[in-house]
Amino acid sequence: MDFSIAPELQQLLDRYRAFVRERILPLEPVIAAKPFVDGHAELEALRDEARAAGLFGPQIPKSLGGLGLGFREHALVSEVLGHSPLGHYTFNCQAPDAGNMEILHLFGTEEQKQRWLVPLAAGALRSCFAMTEPDRAGSNPTWLETRAERDGDHYVIHGRKWFTTSADGAAFAVVMAVTNPSAPPYARASQIIVPTDTPGYRQVRRIPVVGGEGSGWASHSELAFEGARVPVSHRLGEEGAGFLIAQERLGPGRIHHCMRWIGICERALELMCQRAASREIAPGRMLGTRQTIQNFIAESRAEIDAARLMVQHAAWKIDVEGTYAAREQISTVKFFAAGVLGRVLDRSIQTHGALGLTEDTPLSGFWRHERAARIYDGADEVHKSVVARRILRGYGLDVGQQAGTTHG
Amino acid sequence: MDFSIAPELQQLLDRYRAFVRERILPLEPVIAAKPFVDGHAELEALRDEARAAGLFGPQIPKSLGGLGLGFREHALVSEVLGHSPLGHYTFNCQAPDAGNMEILHLFGTEEQKQRWLVPLAAGALRSCFAMTEPDRAGSNPTWLETRAERDGDHYVIHGRKWFTTSADGAAFAVVMAVTNPSAPPYARASQIIVPTDTPGYRQVRRIPVVGGEGSGWASHSELAFEGARVPVSHRLGEEGAGFLIAQERLGPGRIHHCMRWIGICERALELMCQRAASREIAPGRMLGTRQTIQNFIAESRAEIDAARLMVQHAAWKIDVEGTYAAREQISTVKFFAAGVLGRVLDRSIQTHGALGLTEDTPLSGFWRHERAARIYDGADEVHKSVVARRILRGYGLDVGQQAGTTHG
Amino acid sequence: MDFSIAPELQQLLDRYRAFVRERILPLEPVIAAKPFVDGHAELEALRDEARAAGLFGPQIPKSLGGLGLGFREHALVSEVLGHSPLGHYTFNCQAPDAGNMEILHLFGTEEQKQRWLVPLAAGALRSCFAMTEPDRAGSNPTWLETRAERDGDHYVIHGRKWFTTSADGAAFAVVMAVTNPSAPPYARASQIIVPTDTPGYRQVRRIPVVGGEGSGWASHSELAFEGARVPVSHRLGEEGAGFLIAQERLGPGRIHHCMRWIGICERALELMCQRAASREIAPGRMLGTRQTIQNFIAESRAEIDAARLMVQHAAWKIDVEGTYAAREQISTVKFFAAGVLGRVLDRSIQTHGALGLTEDTPLSGFWRHERAARIYDGADEVHKSVVARRILRGYGLDVGQQAGTTHG
Amino acid sequence: MDFSIAPELQQLLDRYRAFVRERILPLEPVIAAKPFVDGHAELEALRDEARAAGLFGPQIPKSLGGLGLGFREHALVSEVLGHSPLGHYTFNCQAPDAGNMEILHLFGTEEQKQRWLVPLAAGALRSCFAMTEPDRAGSNPTWLETRAERDGDHYVIHGRKWFTTSADGAAFAVVMAVTNPSAPPYARASQIIVPTDTPGYRQVRRIPVVGGEGSGWASHSELAFEGARVPVSHRLGEEGAGFLIAQERLGPGRIHHCMRWIGICERALELMCQRAASREIAPGRMLGTRQTIQNFIAESRAEIDAARLMVQHAAWKIDVEGTYAAREQISTVKFFAAGVLGRVLDRSIQTHGALGLTEDTPLSGFWRHERAARIYDGADEVHKSVVARRILRGYGLDVGQQAGTTHG
Repeated sequence: MDFSIAPELQQLLDRYRAFVRERILPLEPVIAAKPFVDGHAELEALRDEARAAGLFGPQIPKSLGGLGLGFREHALVSEVLGHSPLGHYTFNCQAPDAGNMEILHLFGTEEQKQRWLVPLAAGALRSCFAMTEPDRAGSNPTWLETRAERDGDHYVIHGRKWFTTSADGAAFAVVMAVTNPSAPPYARASQIIVPTDTPGYRQVRRIPVVGGEGSGWASHSELAFEGARVPVSHRLGEEGAGFLIAQERLGPGRIHHCMRWIGICERALELMCQRAASREIAPGRMLGTRQTIQNFIAESRAEIDAARLMVQHAAWKIDVEGTYAAREQISTVKFFAAGVLGRVLDRSIQTHGALGLTEDTPLSGFWRHERAARIYDGADEVHKSVVARRILRGYGLDVGQQAGTTHG
Repeated sequence: MDFSIAPELQQLLDRYRAFVRERILPLEPVIAAKPFVDGHAELEALRDEARAAGLFGPQIPKSLGGLGLGFREHALVSEVLGHSPLGHYTFNCQAPDAGNMEILHLFGTEEQKQRWLVPLAAGALRSCFAMTEPDRAGSNPTWLETRAERDGDHYVIHGRKWFTTSADGAAFAVVMAVTNPSAPPYARASQIIVPTDTPGYRQVRRIPVVGGEGSGWASHSELAFEGARVPVSHRLGEEGAGFLIAQERLGPGRIHHCMRWIGICERALELMCQRAASREIAPGRMLGTRQTIQNFIAESRAEIDAARLMVQHAAWKIDVEGTYAAREQISTVKFFAAGVLGRVLDRSIQTHGALGLTEDTPLSGFWRHERAARIYDGADEVHKSVVARRILRGYGLDVGQQAGTTHG
Repeated sequence: MDFSIAPELQQLLDRYRAFVRERILPLEPVIAAKPFVDGHAELEALRDEARAAGLFGPQIPKSLGGLGLGFREHALVSEVLGHSPLGHYTFNCQAPDAGNMEILHLFGTEEQKQRWLVPLAAGALRSCFAMTEPDRAGSNPTWLETRAERDGDHYVIHGRKWFTTSADGAAFAVVMAVTNPSAPPYARASQIIVPTDTPGYRQVRRIPVVGGEGSGWASHSELAFEGARVPVSHRLGEEGAGFLIAQERLGPGRIHHCMRWIGICERALELMCQRAASREIAPGRMLGTRQTIQNFIAESRAEIDAARLMVQHAAWKIDVEGTYAAREQISTVKFFAAGVLGRVLDRSIQTHGALGLTEDTPLSGFWRHERAARIYDGADEVHKSVVARRILRGYGLDVGQQAGTTHG
Repeated sequence: MDFSIAPELQQLLDRYRAFVRERILPLEPVIAAKPFVDGHAELEALRDEARAAGLFGPQIPKSLGGLGLGFREHALVSEVLGHSPLGHYTFNCQAPDAGNMEILHLFGTEEQKQRWLVPLAAGALRSCFAMTEPDRAGSNPTWLETRAERDGDHYVIHGRKWFTTSADGAAFAVVMAVTNPSAPPYARASQIIVPTDTPGYRQVRRIPVVGGEGSGWASHSELAFEGARVPVSHRLGEEGAGFLIAQERLGPGRIHHCMRWIGICERALELMCQRAASREIAPGRMLGTRQTIQNFIAESRAEIDAARLMVQHAAWKIDVEGTYAAREQISTVKFFAAGVLGRVLDRSIQTHGALGLTEDTPLSGFWRHERAARIYDGADEVHKSVVARRILRGYGLDVGQQAGTTHG
């Protein structure tokens, strides 16, 4: 076992860290004060700086203009970027685009890559991934209503999706739809690329979530597919391979989320400590002298360290043994880190008192948006059942497939 | 000990309950979809209905047109109204106006009552209470920067306040300001009524809190007092009696908050159960069959029952022995109930999944706004220290005054 | 609602409290230092004092020589007695004898009462209640292996029981055995009185539990029934009424446990405060100045108050509406209070440091023996499911009977 | 970062694992059924087997007959041995002897090594470490009452110690005593070897702890030093170096405890899973089908993984950068892992129901003895304060030295 970080990687991390501190954090109050789409110009300027600094696309293959970092390396970068809500976007490694790049890279045809992956990797357009449906439990992904029916060389898609992150302004959606309704559950769906200007594709609304409907990349939409017609060549991978591809996407995607959350946690702890060290509770007496605040700090430090090591271990296992072999670690860290995130943000807010609830710090925004961390990409309850069922099979008890997960 | 509720009171509670269910809940989606001030007309219409039904002003003395309920009775009404974010406002028992009515009633001169209390009780104007300051820990209420200096028959006020709830659109503010800087800490401040059209009074901004700055009654403002000049006759009670009056206001006020929170909890539990009983996780299999959801429901039921009994007990003690005698119970239930509120809302959101984060249910709004419950009117940490220090004095240990509380 | 206690009851409580403080607590170190049976003489002397003081048998009907207190009154006495592990035994209201007295009183024939109830009430003998079986989940009480087969005027009993509290030295056992195997689940078993000198009755062992096997009243035994033969007249109530009677016994019994636990909690909090007020952590600086200890005290105060009010409310409901109507409250407080008990004991031990783990205080003993509180008389998990299922039925979802409870 | 384990080390771990499974676990019920000293013969036979297998003394230098494993390697072995309460003793790496070997190795004179270290390493005698005092808070180690006064070439020791683990039957004690009362706090004490046959050394009692006083190695004693006189050459290291040496001993010692706890956790989780997979709650329906049990398993899995990675990381840091550099990680994992241990044992007991409280499984013993884990070697509260104060110094706030820790 060796926990050291190679010097070159450490240097790269330091450069990312410096960029975040010096270029991104100062812009936070400016951009946070207005809707996402109104901050577009500033963000594009930041992206240009990132390109100029040779830091754009850390996870993107070199052939596509990125840095081509491996999974473990990118996990460390991702933590650094997580310090700011603008971090990942600036470097074009934000969800859901990063996941779409990954599956296009792994499963796309050459034509699909040219048309969709190249401009995505360049940051020239945005995309979304439409899986969750309003009337079907997200915990049960095989149970989809959206249908893509074959009509000659085309699919005709009917159905409804929601919580489609970043659909607002996206150039295309990767849509999970049932193509083979009579196949076994995990072989029923396919992933199909639907350009958002396709007739029959409709953005119903941006869903107001924890207080606002957001806009552009920073929003979640409800979508209607009302006979949207796309060529069969828009299908990603084999027919019926939707879940297989989703699994390839979601497993590592969870690790990316976790690393981003750890970045958020570090930021929240930093703010907590700054507040504790500077807020007077009586003349000359700082808040940090209170033992409860000290408990908050120490418990946060411990939990963040724990979560980070678990993510790094899972990332290492993915790199060495593959996503499937690491699925227990992925599920475990997903719910563990989401819990840590919630607790650390809560403690930091409590340390700030009323200030913690204002938009004068990034805490409120983190806290509101990341409540979803315990729900998206598999709710805590689902991941716990999945992990326990896997373990219990090793003891001879088969509880059956957990309804609602992409991996058993 | 007798936990029964008198039949007449039960009837009254049933009438409030019916009003909330039939008249208020259906309006929630309509009013929640727009800023508070834009829903003003609908709310005024609701208030007229409440007046017509003889339910307006449950806690307001009969002489002022209310129902004149005692403390314990009103606590029960308050729970019923807490089911909706619009409940208390509809019946004119919302904070901060209800607290201002109470101190005007108890400490106001006849002239003050005529000018401020009568229209407040009638719902003809709104008010606010300006105590918290941005640069002074709220946990240490005696440590105020705002000064009211005597200049003949007037006070001239300088200072800054924030988190002044409902200042936006208020007709007057009750301001806590130091009038006697060299007196003992708890005798330094006075409460002074400042009409909001007084020169030198300025609403700096509505503070963006957990995602939005709100408007009107549903907002929190930062205020500047820049030489605001008001007659000495605007002072409430004796000079230096500010904390004494605040104590009379805050103690029962905490109980009112607690009962409102319990109403919110009941609503959240009801939504949790409805969701559990109706959401399919697999064909024909409801979410409520999952044991984790059952745990959520049972734990919520237990905690809500516990909190309600504690509030009722504290209310009974206030009625029988007075606020001062009940201060341990008030502090205890304040932090206990705030914790229950947070946990029950969290479980209900988790039960709803992504839906719980949208504005399609009132859960997200409750959750965002009531995060503050563990902070306002004394943070958890402060109340715990207060309670423990009081208890430890009974064992011969005097830890000294907890910085930052209005009662020791 | 009225939380006051009648003056006569308050006086009686004060007398019990004085007896516990003055007579019982000083004997704790003496009796705790040796096995239960070796302290028998001291305990009998204490009982004589209790008789002389007119305090013996608070819950026992006056006709049988007790004080005849109602349920609510006895609940308050029970809390007082809970301060010491010797409290209930001293006054002859200890489990399992108190429960056996209750069902003998309610369901016994005159002959049974003369033979078993009268000496029990006098404290002349001890008894036990044999329900739990080693190979059958206690969570599923209808699923019993022990059989009582009719053979003329006798039952012949075969089976195995364990965790039969106080069987060691008992004069008789009330045994739950299947008499009607083909009846519906809740009508299969009967309760049968088996004198412990019956051939075929065998005490297999005292089970070593959390560190020791104990002795006499303070022990839990494994029992074998190997053809034990008793007259049919030893049956309590109707054939097949075993669960009905068990329900009458267990519902109020849970409330008794809860009140006893609250007494333990108060003792633990008292010890915590004494330690905090007297232990120096640096010269002249007491442990109670540490905020974490203050948090322990305040949180314990809040939780104990919550649990007490819930028990009192449940006791009131049992008195007014009956056990069946109060079953939700009984289940709710059972798991809630058991949790509070565990947490308060844990905090008190932590406050004492290493001393808390020694037998120099009663904390270690309470902590070891009462870990079982979250298991016996229905594990937390079972009660939570029971409560949630009942609530969900009100929302139209029938999850079915929870396996393993005596009331649905 | 690389989480892989070298093949040779993996082989060695497998051999230890096999020995534990095949040789030690079967003896547990035999040895657990009697006092430690009565199982001495069986344990010595086990040690002979360990010697024969070349596994005796994994952490002991090769020059002393051990395997000479490095810190990280031994940490992994320690986890394996933790599965059984007999594990460490069997291989002569049990506390407190292992710690004493370490400081003798690092700080002992050649004469001291020959006389004390060689037989300790051979398993020929036992020792103890006397630091904690009954009247001085363990949280404040510099505040000792025990004095060693110089009298020519001898020290004369007066004072009282307690919780001296394994003093019963030990050949010598390493005693922490004040030699330089007027030196700065951390330079006041020295460590002095006191053979237990020294006149003036007295074992007052074995302290009854969580239910029993134990015996031999498995006990904690109270000791009196009443003029015990030993040559100055019995001092370990420099005069006044007591804390320095204690720090060298306690830092790595905490890591050893943590690894042992993780072994206990794995055993508890294994038992939990076995129970879940085999206990019927209804005919044909296993306990492991219940979601609450699944939550227990998944949460335990996550927390154990987190704790293990933290310990391994701290061990790596100690190896690479030294104990002092790793002190934040040591404190952090100490309280984190102790918490995990408590929760995992609690869940395993709850899963077992009443059986979990008996001595029929090792759970009850683990649970009773390891409650102390949150107290010994620095209570949770102390470590949290230490960590937070260190972190806050990085933000410019100096809260001062935490009373009661050996490292600041």
